[in-house]
Amino acid sequence: MSGRDYRSSGVDIAEGEAAVERMKSSVRRTYNPRVLSDLGSFGGLFRADFPGIPRPVLVASTDGVGTKLKVASMTGRYGTVGADLVNHCVNDILVQGAEPLFFLDYIACGRLDAGVAATIVEGMASACRTCGCALIGGETAEMPGFYAPGDYDVAGTIVGVVEESSIVDGSGITPGMRIIGLESSGLHTNGYSLARKVLFDLAGLTPDSRPGALGGATVADALLEVHRCYLDAVRPVLEEGLARGLCHVTGGGVPGNLKRILPRGCGAVIEESWPVPPLFTLIEDLGGIARREMRRVFNMGAGFLVVVDEDSEARCFDLLANAGGRPFPAGSIIAGGGIEYSGKEP
Amino acid sequence: MSGRDYRSSGVDIAEGEAAVERMKSSVRRTYNPRVLSDLGSFGGLFRADFPGIPRPVLVASTDGVGTKLKVASMTGRYGTVGADLVNHCVNDILVQGAEPLFFLDYIACGRLDAGVAATIVEGMASACRTCGCALIGGETAEMPGFYAPGDYDVAGTIVGVVEESSIVDGSGITPGMRIIGLESSGLHTNGYSLARKVLFDLAGLTPDSRPGALGGATVADALLEVHRCYLDAVRPVLEEGLARGLCHVTGGGVPGNLKRILPRGCGAVIEESWPVPPLFTLIEDLGGIARREMRRVFNMGAGFLVVVDEDSEARCFDLLANAGGRPFPAGSIIAGGGIEYSGKEP
Repeated sequence: MSGRDYRSSGVDIAEGEAAVERMKSSVRRTYNPRVLSDLGSFGGLFRADFPGIPRPVLVASTDGVGTKLKVASMTGRYGTVGADLVNHCVNDILVQGAEPLFFLDYIACGRLDAGVAATIVEGMASACRTCGCALIGGETAEMPGFYAPGDYDVAGTIVGVVEESSIVDGSGITPGMRIIGLESSGLHTNGYSLARKVLFDLAGLTPDSRPGALGGATVADALLEVHRCYLDAVRPVLEEGLARGLCHVTGGGVPGNLKRILPRGCGAVIEESWPVPPLFTLIEDLGGIARREMRRVFNMGAGFLVVVDEDSEARCFDLLANAGGRPFPAGSIIAGGGIEYSGKEP
Repeated sequence: MSGRDYRSSGVDIAEGEAAVERMKSSVRRTYNPRVLSDLGSFGGLFRADFPGIPRPVLVASTDGVGTKLKVASMTGRYGTVGADLVNHCVNDILVQGAEPLFFLDYIACGRLDAGVAATIVEGMASACRTCGCALIGGETAEMPGFYAPGDYDVAGTIVGVVEESSIVDGSGITPGMRIIGLESSGLHTNGYSLARKVLFDLAGLTPDSRPGALGGATVADALLEVHRCYLDAVRPVLEEGLARGLCHVTGGGVPGNLKRILPRGCGAVIEESWPVPPLFTLIEDLGGIARREMRRVFNMGAGFLVVVDEDSEARCFDLLANAGGRPFPAGSIIAGGGIEYSGKEP
C-alpha cells in the first residue's frame, strides 16, 4: 500500500511484509484511473481533477473505531471493524454533502499478526470499493508495550469533494423544518465502553450469550453489526438540493450531534417515534440507565438525520425510501436553543 | 477542531471540551483563506484551487510516531511529539515533490488529560504553521483499557499537492548519478524500540542520565530531539527540476528506504563519509550492535537523500547548503540491484 511502512515499527519486518502481500489484491481493487501510485511508495497519489465541479472543496475527516475493537479482539473477529471505520468516515463527510475520493488507514498493535492486519485492511478495502473510494495509503505500526496481545487500534482518514455552492452546513435551517431519521444498524461505533461495561461486567454476559431480547443473535453478533453507510441513501436528496442540514449521529447521540449543525436561535423537538432496537433497550434495562442518558451516548436507532423544508418532506421521504434509506419522522426544528424530546420518558 | 469529536470516546466529555478550548487558538493560527471550516464541524473544508499548477495531483500519507511516545510518557514531555509527527509526514510527501496543504491528527489514550492533549496538538499546530500547512481536523479518542496511564498514541495524515509533470518518483535514476545526504537531527521517529531497550534496559541509563558521549545532554534530550523537516532545504532543488530521486530515511534506514525509489537495474554504493552522530554510536557500543544492523534500523545521521545528475551535483550542493540543508556526499548510483557500503565496517 502506498506509504504503508512496516519498517517504522522496527520490529517484525517479515510479518509486516507477509501482511502487505495479503492485502495487495484487495487494496488494488479500490484503485481507479485517478490513482497514480501503487503500494509501497512514500505517499499515495490521486489526480485532483473534478469534472463537473466548478469550485471543488475537499472535505477531510479522521476517526477511529473506539472500543468496539475490544469486542473484535475478545472474539477474534476482525472482519468488520475495517468497514465500520470507512463507513463512519464516509458518513462524517457526507454531512457536508461530500462524495468520498480516497482513504488512508492507521493500524497499531503490540505484536503484528499478518492475518489479522490483512483481515482488517480487507474489510476497509471492501467498504471503500462499495462507495467508490480508493484506499491509497496506510501505516501499520508495531509498538511493543503499547497494546495488549490481540488489541489493535485502527484509525482512518477520508478525503472527499463537494462543490462549494452545494456545501451543506445547516446555516439555512429555520424553525418549522422537519427532521427525518434514517435507521441505524446497531451501536455503529459509539458507546462501546458503556455497552461492554453493562453487558459483560455488570450483567455477566459473554460474547456467545443469546439473550432473548436479541431474537437468537449472540451478543457479539449484535455488537459487531457493521456501522451503516448512508451515502447511497442520501445522495438523491443532495442531488435535488433538498438537504438543509445533515447530521451523523455518533458519540453524544442525537442531542450531542444535532446541536453541532443548528444555527443560533434554532433548537429541535425530537419525536422518538421510531422503534428503538432491542440492543439499546437491553443495555438500558440491564444497566438501569435512564433514557435521557442513553440518548446522550447511543444513536438509539437513528444513525443519520436529514433536515428538510416542511413542503419537501414528502418528496424527501420518497427519495430516501426509494434509495433504501429506511426513513422515519424524527421531529421538527423549533425556535430556541435546546434539543427536547416530545412525550414522556419511557 | 473540525471533526474533533470527543463524544466518540463516550467518556470524559468535560475533559475533552477543556482540551479543545485550549487547542483552539493554536489550531486557528494554521488556517489560511483556503480553509472554509472551523473547529467542531464534521469534516474539515479546504478549497481545491491550485493556482499555477495545471495538472494538480494530491499526495497523501498517514504515519505515527512509534514508541518515541514512550519516551514522552516516561518524561512527561509531550511538547515535541506533535512536531515529530507533522515533520515526518511533510518529509514523506516531499519525496514525491509535494508541498503540504493540510493535516489531520488522531490521538488515542486510556484516560484523557486535557493539558497533555492540548500540548500535543499545540506542537502539531506550530509545526504545521512553519510549513504553511493547515491543521483542519482531528480526533481525540479516550479508550479505557487500551492504553497505560500516561500513554498516548498519536498518528496523522497529511495531504499535499504536486504538479503531475513534476512528480519525483525515481524512475529516471541511472547509474553514475550522485547521492547527496542531508543531516538528520537524531533518531527522528524510528528505532525507538531498540534504542530504549539498549539505553534503558540493557545499559541501565535513565532519561536524566548524561553519558559523556552526549556532550552534556541528557538521554531524554537526545531521544526527544525533534524530527527534522526537509521542506525548505529541498524546495530550491525541486524548483530547478534537479531532483532525480528523493528518499526519506525512516525505519529500515538508508538501505531499506533507498531501495523503495530505485528503478530495476539500479543499486547504490553508500559512502558513509559523514560523521555518525554520537547518539547512534552510543547505542551501537552499549548494545554491541553491528554497524550493518544499525544501518538497517537507524538513519545514522542521514535523514534525507537527494539523487542528482553527476553534472548538477555542485549546483545542488550549493542550493541545499544555502537553504540550510547541511548536505554531504553520500554515495553513487551503480548498475545492479543492491545497496552496498564502501570501505570497511568500523
